[in-house]
Amino acid sequence: MSHEPASPPAELTDDEVRALDAHWRAANYLAVGQIYLLDDNPLLTEPLRPEHVKPRLLGHWGTSPGLNLVHTHLNRVVRARDLDAICVWGPGHGGPAVLANSWLEGSYTDTYPDITRDAAGMGRLFRQFSFPGGVPSHVAPETPGSIHEGGELGYSLSHAYGAAFDNPGLLVTCVIGDGEAETGPLATSWHSNSFLDPLHDGSVLPILHLNGYKIANPTVLSRLPEQELDDLLRGYGHEPIHVTGDDPIAVHRLMAAAMDSALDRIDALRREALEGSTERPRWPVIVLRTPKGWTGPAVVDGLPVEGTWRAHQVPLSEVRTNPEHLRQLEEWMRSYRPEELFDASGRPREQVLEHIPDGERRLGANPHTNGGLLLRDLPLPDPSTLAVPVDKPGGSLHEPTRVLGRLLEQVMAATEERRDFRLVGPDETASNRLDAVYGATGKAWQETVLGTDEHLDRHGRVMEILSEHTCQGWLEGYLLTGRHGLFSSYEAFAHIVDSMVNQHIKWLRTTRRLPWRRPIASLNYLLTSHVWRQDHNGFSHQDPGFIDHILNKAPEVVRVYLPPDTNTLLSVADHVLRSRDYVNVVVAGKQPTQDWLDLDAANAHCARGAGIWDWAGTEDGLREPDVVLACAGDIPTQEILAAAQLLRRHLPDLRVRVVNVVDLARLLPQAEHPHGMTDPEFDALFTAGKTVIFAYHGYPWLIHRLTYRRTNHPHIHVRGYKEIGTTTTPFDMLVRNDLDRYRLVMDVIDRVPGLAVLAAPLRQRMEDTRLRHHAWIREHGVDLPEVTEWSWQG
Amino acid sequence: MSHEPASPPAELTDDEVRALDAHWRAANYLAVGQIYLLDDNPLLTEPLRPEHVKPRLLGHWGTSPGLNLVHTHLNRVVRARDLDAICVWGPGHGGPAVLANSWLEGSYTDTYPDITRDAAGMGRLFRQFSFPGGVPSHVAPETPGSIHEGGELGYSLSHAYGAAFDNPGLLVTCVIGDGEAETGPLATSWHSNSFLDPLHDGSVLPILHLNGYKIANPTVLSRLPEQELDDLLRGYGHEPIHVTGDDPIAVHRLMAAAMDSALDRIDALRREALEGSTERPRWPVIVLRTPKGWTGPAVVDGLPVEGTWRAHQVPLSEVRTNPEHLRQLEEWMRSYRPEELFDASGRPREQVLEHIPDGERRLGANPHTNGGLLLRDLPLPDPSTLAVPVDKPGGSLHEPTRVLGRLLEQVMAATEERRDFRLVGPDETASNRLDAVYGATGKAWQETVLGTDEHLDRHGRVMEILSEHTCQGWLEGYLLTGRHGLFSSYEAFAHIVDSMVNQHIKWLRTTRRLPWRRPIASLNYLLTSHVWRQDHNGFSHQDPGFIDHILNKAPEVVRVYLPPDTNTLLSVADHVLRSRDYVNVVVAGKQPTQDWLDLDAANAHCARGAGIWDWAGTEDGLREPDVVLACAGDIPTQEILAAAQLLRRHLPDLRVRVVNVVDLARLLPQAEHPHGMTDPEFDALFTAGKTVIFAYHGYPWLIHRLTYRRTNHPHIHVRGYKEIGTTTTPFDMLVRNDLDRYRLVMDVIDRVPGLAVLAAPLRQRMEDTRLRHHAWIREHGVDLPEVTEWSWQG
Repeated sequence: MSHEPASPPAELTDDEVRALDAHWRAANYLAVGQIYLLDDNPLLTEPLRPEHVKPRLLGHWGTSPGLNLVHTHLNRVVRARDLDAICVWGPGHGGPAVLANSWLEGSYTDTYPDITRDAAGMGRLFRQFSFPGGVPSHVAPETPGSIHEGGELGYSLSHAYGAAFDNPGLLVTCVIGDGEAETGPLATSWHSNSFLDPLHDGSVLPILHLNGYKIANPTVLSRLPEQELDDLLRGYGHEPIHVTGDDPIAVHRLMAAAMDSALDRIDALRREALEGSTERPRWPVIVLRTPKGWTGPAVVDGLPVEGTWRAHQVPLSEVRTNPEHLRQLEEWMRSYRPEELFDASGRPREQVLEHIPDGERRLGANPHTNGGLLLRDLPLPDPSTLAVPVDKPGGSLHEPTRVLGRLLEQVMAATEERRDFRLVGPDETASNRLDAVYGATGKAWQETVLGTDEHLDRHGRVMEILSEHTCQGWLEGYLLTGRHGLFSSYEAFAHIVDSMVNQHIKWLRTTRRLPWRRPIASLNYLLTSHVWRQDHNGFSHQDPGFIDHILNKAPEVVRVYLPPDTNTLLSVADHVLRSRDYVNVVVAGKQPTQDWLDLDAANAHCARGAGIWDWAGTEDGLREPDVVLACAGDIPTQEILAAAQLLRRHLPDLRVRVVNVVDLARLLPQAEHPHGMTDPEFDALFTAGKTVIFAYHGYPWLIHRLTYRRTNHPHIHVRGYKEIGTTTTPFDMLVRNDLDRYRLVMDVIDRVPGLAVLAAPLRQRMEDTRLRHHAWIREHGVDLPEVTEWSWQG
Repeated sequence: MSHEPASPPAELTDDEVRALDAHWRAANYLAVGQIYLLDDNPLLTEPLRPEHVKPRLLGHWGTSPGLNLVHTHLNRVVRARDLDAICVWGPGHGGPAVLANSWLEGSYTDTYPDITRDAAGMGRLFRQFSFPGGVPSHVAPETPGSIHEGGELGYSLSHAYGAAFDNPGLLVTCVIGDGEAETGPLATSWHSNSFLDPLHDGSVLPILHLNGYKIANPTVLSRLPEQELDDLLRGYGHEPIHVTGDDPIAVHRLMAAAMDSALDRIDALRREALEGSTERPRWPVIVLRTPKGWTGPAVVDGLPVEGTWRAHQVPLSEVRTNPEHLRQLEEWMRSYRPEELFDASGRPREQVLEHIPDGERRLGANPHTNGGLLLRDLPLPDPSTLAVPVDKPGGSLHEPTRVLGRLLEQVMAATEERRDFRLVGPDETASNRLDAVYGATGKAWQETVLGTDEHLDRHGRVMEILSEHTCQGWLEGYLLTGRHGLFSSYEAFAHIVDSMVNQHIKWLRTTRRLPWRRPIASLNYLLTSHVWRQDHNGFSHQDPGFIDHILNKAPEVVRVYLPPDTNTLLSVADHVLRSRDYVNVVVAGKQPTQDWLDLDAANAHCARGAGIWDWAGTEDGLREPDVVLACAGDIPTQEILAAAQLLRRHLPDLRVRVVNVVDLARLLPQAEHPHGMTDPEFDALFTAGKTVIFAYHGYPWLIHRLTYRRTNHPHIHVRGYKEIGTTTTPFDMLVRNDLDRYRLVMDVIDRVPGLAVLAAPLRQRMEDTRLRHHAWIREHGVDLPEVTEWSWQG
C-alpha cells in the first residue's frame, strides 16, 4: 500500500506552516500574474505600469486561492506519506491555480521546456494565459497532471472514481466546486462509493470546496444549514471533516489536520477491508469553506468583492486605464511579498519548495494522469474462436450481442489479474444480451447482497448504475488513466451524455496534438436496443440521432460502425478495442439476425468499410447495374436483401447491385475524414449516374449530408427513420418510416428509368401487401408470417 | 387554500380499508389484464384460454402495484380533503397502473368515449395496451392526467416542481421510482425545495417508491442502510415518513396514516409561512417500500419472482403455449376476486368507487394536467416601445439581449399578479445581459440571504440553478400546466438537455394529434454566449450543434431563429412568446452589435424568415447578381456585410446580392417543414445558378443538409464552425474557421467565374491581411483595429 500512514504527525511546527503559507502565497501570486500581466516585470522589480497589463482581462480569480490551498496541502501529505496521488480539479476557471502549482513544482517546465522556472519563464507563463496561442483559463488537456477539463461542470467526481477503479495503490483527490455540486451528474456521482472495492480499487477523497458562489449567485450547498449539509454528505455515504476560515495561518493548521485525519481514516478503512470487513466503508469528505477570491481586493469601487460573487472573474477591471485599479492590483500582488518567495532570478526559494514531492510523485507529473504511459494492449481473443459458421448467407440466425458477450467474457477472463478492462452501462448488460460476461466477472456492488440477487460481486468489473452520466464519467476516468472499456447503452438514451462526449472528443482532439500526451484507449459505445427494436417501448425510446451528434465532431477522433450481423460485429469489436484516441460508436442488434458473412468475409468487409455484396445482387459483371441497393445497419440490410430477393424473383432481368456500408465515415469525401473514400472509389461502388436506393439505420438526411459532394448524389434516394414512432410491431416501424422491403421495391420501380410501366403489377402487389400488413397487425398484434418467417434464399 | 386539513381523520374504519383494498385490487386486476389479455373474456367469466392472451407480451408488471397503491390512497385524501391535486408518475412502464385508475374513476371514458366503463370497454382497454394502434406501456401524452412521460427516467421531480410554481392552491404529488432516483437529474432536483415559495407556489409531496430493483439489479437507494437514506433525505431538506410492508391491509393503514401525516404537515408548514415564517420548510417525503411485482406470482418455474428483479417485466412468459403459465395467470387474476370488484356488466362496484373524487378533482381530469385549458395569452409589450431607432444600417450599436431584458422586465411586471411567466437558466441571466428583468422581479431563493447578495427574492420568478436539467425540468412542468417561460443558456451547454428536449418534442408531436389536449405555450430557448463569443472560455465552450440536434426532430414542432441584430431579436422574441406547441431555439448575441434594421423592417424580415437586404448589395435590379452573399447568425451577418463592403469598394462592378436568413427552416423544402420555401421562392432569393457564398453560424454541413434538393445547391458554398476552437480573440475564431470577411472575399474571387485574374490583387491583399492578423494577435492579444473599429458604410 503506497499510502499507509507514516505515524501521523503531531501538530505542524511554525516553520512548517510558514513553508506551506509561502507556497500558497507564491501560487496565489502566480495566479494573479497570469490573469493580469504580460511577460514584462513578472517579479514587480519595478512599479507596475499599464503596459505590463494584458489588454483583455479574461481570467477568473474566484476559485484560485482555494485550489492553491488544496494543492499546497496535497504536496505536503504526498511528500510526507510518499503517496501515489493525483487530483481531479473540478471547478471551472481553475487554470491559473493548477498552472501556478505545476510551474512551482517543476512539472510545467519538464513538459514545456520554454516555460523555465525563472523570471523569463514566469513572464511567459503569465503572458500565455488566456492569450492567443496560449492556454485556456480552465484546467485542460494542456495542463500537466490533469485528466479533467474544468468548465463543463459536473463530472469531476465520476472521473475521480473512474481513475481509482483497479488502481489499488492510488489516492484520487477530487476538488468539487460548489457550483458544479448543483449539477445532476455530480449529485448522483456521490453514490459511486457503492461501487468502489476497497481491495482492488484505490481511494477517492472528495474535497467539497464551498466558496459560496457561482457566477452571480450563492450556491445551494453553501447556504444549507450546516446540519443539513452534514446529513446530505452522510446520506451520500461519507463522513464530513470541516475546514472553515479566512485567516490563512489558522486555515493551514486546520487543513493539514483535516488532510491527516482523512488519510488516516482512509488507511484504517482500507486495512479493515483487507482484514475481511465486507461493510461498505464510510469514507471521509473534506468540506472546505474559504472566501471566494480570498486574499484578493476586499473592496473595489466601493463595493465588497472578496468573499462575494463579484470575485468570480477579474476583481479589478480596466486596469490599463484606471490608475486606482492599477494601484490596487500592484498592492494586491505585493501583498504576497514576492521578494520572500522568489529569488532575484525568479526561481522559487527553498522555503516555497519545501513540501513539494519529487519526480513522479508531483501532482503534475504522476503518470496516471497521462494514462497512455501506462496503457497495455488488451489481451483480445482470436475472433475466429468465437465466430459463427456461415456456409451460405442467411442460412442461420444468431444474436450479435450475445456472441459479443462471449468475446467480452474472454477479455474479462484474460484481464482477471491485470484488471484493466471494465464494462459499464445503465443496467442493461443482461437485457442487451451481453450476460456471458458474468462467466468471468460480476457486477461491482458494495451494498447488501440478498439471496435472490445474481452476479453481484464486491470485486466485479461490470459497472451498472441507472445514470448514463455516471457510466460515462467512470469510463472516461478509467480510460484517461490508461485502461480499456466499453459502454453499452440503449441507442436513444446515449443522448443523455451528448454534452459529456463532446468534451471527451475535444479532449482527445487536443491531446493528439500534444506530443507529451500518449495515446489512450478509445471510448467505445455499443448502442443496441436501437430504434428499430424499440417498437415495444414506444416513441420515447426511438432516436438514432447520437450518430448525427458524433459525426459533427472532429473527424480525426470519431468513428461510427453499423455491423449488419454477428461476425461483422465481432470484427468491428476487435478493431475498436485495439484502437487508440477515438470515440467509436457501434450500433448493433441483439435480436436473432441472419448471418450474412463468415469471419474472413466479415474482416475483409469491415476493413474496406463498405463493399459490394456480389452474392446478393444480380449484376452480370459486364455492364453497370441498373440500380444500387445500399444499406447501413442490421435492419436496413435485412430489408434491402429482402427487396433484392423480391426484385430477383419478379424482375429477373434487372441488374441489381447490393452495397453494404459498415463504416459510415467512408461515405465522406477523403478530404473531410481520414476514412473518407476518394471519388473514384465512391463511384466504383455507387456508380456515377445510376439510381441508388439507400436504406439507412438513422435519420435519412445524414446520408445526404455525407454524400452531397459526390457525382451521383442527385440519384441517391435515402430511406431511414423519419421520426415517426409509436408502440407497434417491429415491421410496422419500418412501414411507417417507408423503410420496409415493399416500399424499397416500389422506390426502385419509381426511380429506375423505364420500370414504371413494366413493373406496375409488381408495384401494385407491394402496395397491397402493405395494406394487408396494416390490417393484419391491428387484428393479430404480430407481423405478417411472410415477414417474420422470411429468410434469404440466394 | 384548497388543501387546508379537514380535521385529520382518526384511524380508518375497517370498511374504509376494505374499500381502499377493493379499489387497489381492481386496479391491479386491470393492470394485469392490460399486460396479458386481448379483448375477449375480460371479467374471466369463462376459464382463461390461450386465445384470450396477447401473442406478444410487452408490458411490465413490476411497478404497477405500487403505483396503484399510491393512486388509491391519493383518491382518498383528494376526496376527503377536497384537494386540487395532480400526480407526476415517474417510474417507467407505469402505463397499466395509471390507465387502470383513469378507467376506474371514469376520466378515461370521458377522454376516450369508446373505452366505456363496462365489460366491452374493459376489453378494449386491455387490448389496446402495447398493441399496434394502441397505447404505450409508459405513462404518456395519451394518458389522461399526465404531464410526464415515464420511461426516460430522471425528470419527474423537476416536472413536479415546475407544476407547483405559481400554483398556490395545488398539491403536486410525485412518485419517484428507485431506478430513476439513481439518475443525476433526479438526484439534484431534490434541491428544488430551495426555490419553492410557500406563499405563491403550491406544494410538492415526493413519494419515493423503493420496490428495490431496476431491470436486472437492485437499486442503490433501496440498499442503503435506512439511517443513511434518512440522512440523505434530510440532507435534501425533507422529513421522511416511512411506509414499509407486504401485507396489503397493514400497508393500507400505514399509507393512509402517512398521507394524512404528510398533508397535515404540509398544511402546518404553509400556515407558518402565511404567518410570516421565512425559514425554508422541511417538507415531508413518503418512503414507500413494497415488493416489486407485489401480489404477482411468487414463484415461476421454480424461481422467486415477486419481490425480485424478475418481476420487472412479464412475470409469466409464453402464456399462450405454456399451460402451467396460463394456469398461474388465471390464478393470479382471480386472486383479486374480480367478481367482488365488477358487476356482471363489468362496471366497478360501489365499494371500489367509494373514495374516488368527483369531476375535475379526479387525478385523470384535473385541468392542470391539460395546461392548455388554463393557458392565457401573455401580456406582451408593444415591441415598438422597446425597439432601437435605426436611421441607417450599421449606424449604431446595441446589445441585443440587453434590450430583450427590457422586454422580459415588462412581461414580468405585467404578470406580477397573474404570475404565469418564469425565466430559467443556469446562473447566466446577468452574464447574458438580461438583468433588466430584475427591475420587475428577483431570483427565487428560500435559503439564507446575506447583505452582499443582489436580487434574491423569496417570491422571485427568475430561476437560477447550475443544473440545466433542473432548469429544463422546471420549465417543462411549468409550461405543461399552462404557463409561459424562457430558458436562457450558453449555446454549447444546451446539449446537456438534448435528451430531455427530445422527449418534450415527442410529447408535443403526440399531443398535437390528440384533440382533447389543448395547445400549450412553446418551450423557448435563448442561446447566447454562443460559439463565436466563447473565444475567452475556449474550446470546451464552443459548440453550435444544438441547432442540428433540434432540426432532426419533428418538423411540425421545431423552429430555429438566428436574429442578426437587436430589433430582429425583439421581433423574434415577440413571435416565439406568442406561439404554441413549439420548441423555439433563438440564437442571439449579447455583445454590442450593429443595428441593421429598424423595427418595421425587422418585423417584415422576420415574417418572411429570409430576404434580400437591398441596401447591402450592389445589384442593379435589371440583371441577376454575379454572386449571392448569404448569412445566418449575428456574426456571420457582420462578416458578410464587411465582405460586401470590401467587394463594393474594390470590385465595384461586381453585382452582389446579400441575403439574410433568420428562420433556418425556411431553407428546407416546403414538403419537409411547414416553414420551408417553395423552389421558386428559393430560386428567387438564391438564384438558379449563381455562386452563393453562405456564412452560417454553426456547422456548415447543416446548410447543405437543408438545401441539397435545391436547384442551385451545387453552387452553394458554406462557411461555418468547423470544430476548430481554442482560447483566442473573437476575430481569430472566425479566421481559424475560414468564416472571416477576408476569406469570404477570397471565396467570392475563387468561385465566381471570371474573377480569378481580374481580382488577383485583391485576393492577395486579403491573404496578406489574414497573415497580418495572425502576427498582430500574438503580439497584442487583441484584434486588428480595422476589425474592432469596423462599421458598415453603405
